[in-house]
Amino acid sequence: MIKSFKINATDSPLKKELKHKIDLKTKPLGALGKLENLAIKIGLIQETLSPKISEPTLLVFAGDHGIVAEGVSPYPQEVTWQMVMNFISGGAAINVFAKQNGWNLEVIDAGVNYDFPPELPIRNLKINKGTNNFLNQPAMTDAELIQAIESGAQLVTELADKGCNCVAFGEMGIGNTSAAAIIMSKITGIHLEECVGRGTGLDQHGLAHKIGVLSHAIENHVATQPLAVLKTFGGYEIAMMCGALLEAAELRMTILIDGFIVTSALLVAQHLYPEILDYCIFSHQSDEKGHQKMLQYLHADALLKLDMRLGEGTGAALALPLVEAAVNFLNEMASFESAGVSNK
Amino acid sequence: MIKSFKINATDSPLKKELKHKIDLKTKPLGALGKLENLAIKIGLIQETLSPKISEPTLLVFAGDHGIVAEGVSPYPQEVTWQMVMNFISGGAAINVFAKQNGWNLEVIDAGVNYDFPPELPIRNLKINKGTNNFLNQPAMTDAELIQAIESGAQLVTELADKGCNCVAFGEMGIGNTSAAAIIMSKITGIHLEECVGRGTGLDQHGLAHKIGVLSHAIENHVATQPLAVLKTFGGYEIAMMCGALLEAAELRMTILIDGFIVTSALLVAQHLYPEILDYCIFSHQSDEKGHQKMLQYLHADALLKLDMRLGEGTGAALALPLVEAAVNFLNEMASFESAGVSNK
Repeated sequence: MIKSFKINATDSPLKKELKHKIDLKTKPLGALGKLENLAIKIGLIQETLSPKISEPTLLVFAGDHGIVAEGVSPYPQEVTWQMVMNFISGGAAINVFAKQNGWNLEVIDAGVNYDFPPELPIRNLKINKGTNNFLNQPAMTDAELIQAIESGAQLVTELADKGCNCVAFGEMGIGNTSAAAIIMSKITGIHLEECVGRGTGLDQHGLAHKIGVLSHAIENHVATQPLAVLKTFGGYEIAMMCGALLEAAELRMTILIDGFIVTSALLVAQHLYPEILDYCIFSHQSDEKGHQKMLQYLHADALLKLDMRLGEGTGAALALPLVEAAVNFLNEMASFESAGVSNK
Repeated sequence: MIKSFKINATDSPLKKELKHKIDLKTKPLGALGKLENLAIKIGLIQETLSPKISEPTLLVFAGDHGIVAEGVSPYPQEVTWQMVMNFISGGAAINVFAKQNGWNLEVIDAGVNYDFPPELPIRNLKINKGTNNFLNQPAMTDAELIQAIESGAQLVTELADKGCNCVAFGEMGIGNTSAAAIIMSKITGIHLEECVGRGTGLDQHGLAHKIGVLSHAIENHVATQPLAVLKTFGGYEIAMMCGALLEAAELRMTILIDGFIVTSALLVAQHLYPEILDYCIFSHQSDEKGHQKMLQYLHADALLKLDMRLGEGTGAALALPLVEAAVNFLNEMASFESAGVSNK
C-alpha cells in the first residue's frame, strides 16, 4: 500500500475577493487575460490575497528503462547518465533556463543504470539500475513502486521545510516516452497510436517499430488500475514524480507541470486524487505528439506553446516569469483610486 | 519629406552557421522549437554566432486623439494623462512587468492633452495637445507627421548610443484603437468591421457606434498611401513609434513588437521598408479583435498568447525572458562533444 495523501480542493470565497482586487487595478476589466486566472489560482492555493513565490525549485529525476533493449529510441541508454553529468556540469538546456529564471535546480538519480561517483551533487534515490524490460515483465516490483512514490514525496517535504512553495519537475530517461505513452493510453482510454510520438527524433520506420513494440507490451499485461499501470510500464523517475506531485499538492505548493513525461505522472496522480489539478499550472504544450491530447483530457491550457520537445523541465523553467508576473501584478499594481485614474 | 532609412535584409551565410551551432547542442535536433528560430534571427540581426541582449529598453509613447469626442471609448480622455502619471509612479502593469524582467522603461509625451510639470521624468516630445478629430479633418499636419517620425527616430539613436541593442515600444492613448483600426484597414485592405474591436471594453452598442463613426471618417478622406493614412488617421504616439521602429531596424536592433497599436505603426513602416520585418519579434497576440489578422497579414507568429489586451507594451515586456532564453541557450549550452554525450 502506498501512503495516502490529503489533498483539498482550493475553491473558497476568497476567489471572489481575489477577482475584486484584480478588477480594481488600473487596467480595463479582464485585460490581463490568462495572467488574471493565474493570479487567482495561486491566491487560492496559498489562501491569501497577496501570494508570493518562494524558493522555486525544479527537480530533475533521471531513470533508465529496460524497454530500450527493443530499439524504441534513436539514442543509446548511456545518454541518460551522460546527460545527468551534463546537468551537474551546467551544460544542458535546463541549466541555462533554470539559472536565467531563478530556479533552484536539483538532480535526482531515481534509477539510472550507472554508478555515479558519490561526491557529485546528485541526490541518490536510486531504486534500481533501470527498470525491467516491460515487454515481457512488469517494469518494477510493488516494493519498488512504493519506494519511488515515497521517496518523491519525502523529497518535496524537505523542500517545503526549506521554504519552497513552488515546484516543477523535469526528467531524463532514454526510453521514457515509451513508458509515458502506454500510461497515457491506459489511463485516458485514447488509442495507443494516438499516444506514441517520435520522442527524441525517431523516423517514420522507427515510429512504426515503437508502436509495434508497445502494442505487444500492452497485450502481454493485464494492468488497468493507475498504480498497476505505473508499476507495469512506468519508470522510476515517473513514479517518483507521481509521489512528488501528490506531496506538493498536499503541502499546497504551486506546481508547474512540464511536458509529456511529467504529465503522464500527473495522469496517474489525478486519477487517485482529482483535486491535485487545483495546484497545477500547465507551463508548455510539448511538440511530442500525445501531449496536446493529454492536456485536452485534463481540460488544461498551457501557458506556452513553443514547439519544444526536450523534457528536462525546460517548459516549466521557461514559464516561471509568467507565474511571477501574475503574482507581481496582483501585489504591485495600483488601483484606480490609489493612482487617481478615472474609471469608466 | 520624411528622412529616408537604410534598412538591410539580414539573411546571410551566417544562417547556416547558426543552425549548425544549434544542432551540435546537447538536445535532439529541433527540440527547442521556436527558441531555435529566435536564436537564429537574433544572431542574423547582430551578425554574430554569439549574440547578446544589452540594455533592453521599452519606450512607452503617450498621445491623445481628437476622435474621442465622438464617443469611441468607454474611458474619458483624461485617463491618458492620468495613466502617464501612473507610469511614472510605478503603479501600472507595464511598470511591474518591466521591473520584473529587466527592462529600462522610459515614458514619452508624444502628444498628450495635458501640461505635465517639467520636473517629472517624462520625456517631452509633445507634438501638440492631442490630434484633431479625424472625423472631418486630418488628425495632424504634414509638418507634425514629419516631426513625430523624426523625434521617434532620434530617440532610438540616443538609445543605441547608450549601448541598447533591444527595444520595445508601448503606448497609452485613449482612442488609439480607433486610429489603429483605420490604419489597419487602409493598409491591409481588410474590411473595417474586421479591424474594429472593443478596445478598453466597449459593449455591443458601443462597438456598433465606433464602427459607424470610423466608417464615416473613412468616407470623409481620400488618403491611401501609408504616410497619408498615418497623417490622416494616426496618433502622434503611433507616428513616433513608426519613426522609432524604422531607426531601430536601421541600427540593427532586435525589436519586440507588442500588440494592436504598435503593430499598426509597424504596418506603415513595413509598407515603406519591408526589410524591417527581419528585425521584429512578435511578442504577444492581443485579444483585441484585429490583432490576429494583422499578424496573419504579416505572416507573423507571436511568442505568447495570453489573451491580454492592455497595451502599454505589456506583451513585449513579458516576452523578454523568452528572447533571452534563446540567446542564452545559443551561448551557454554544451555541445555533444564538449559534454561527452553520445549523439545518435
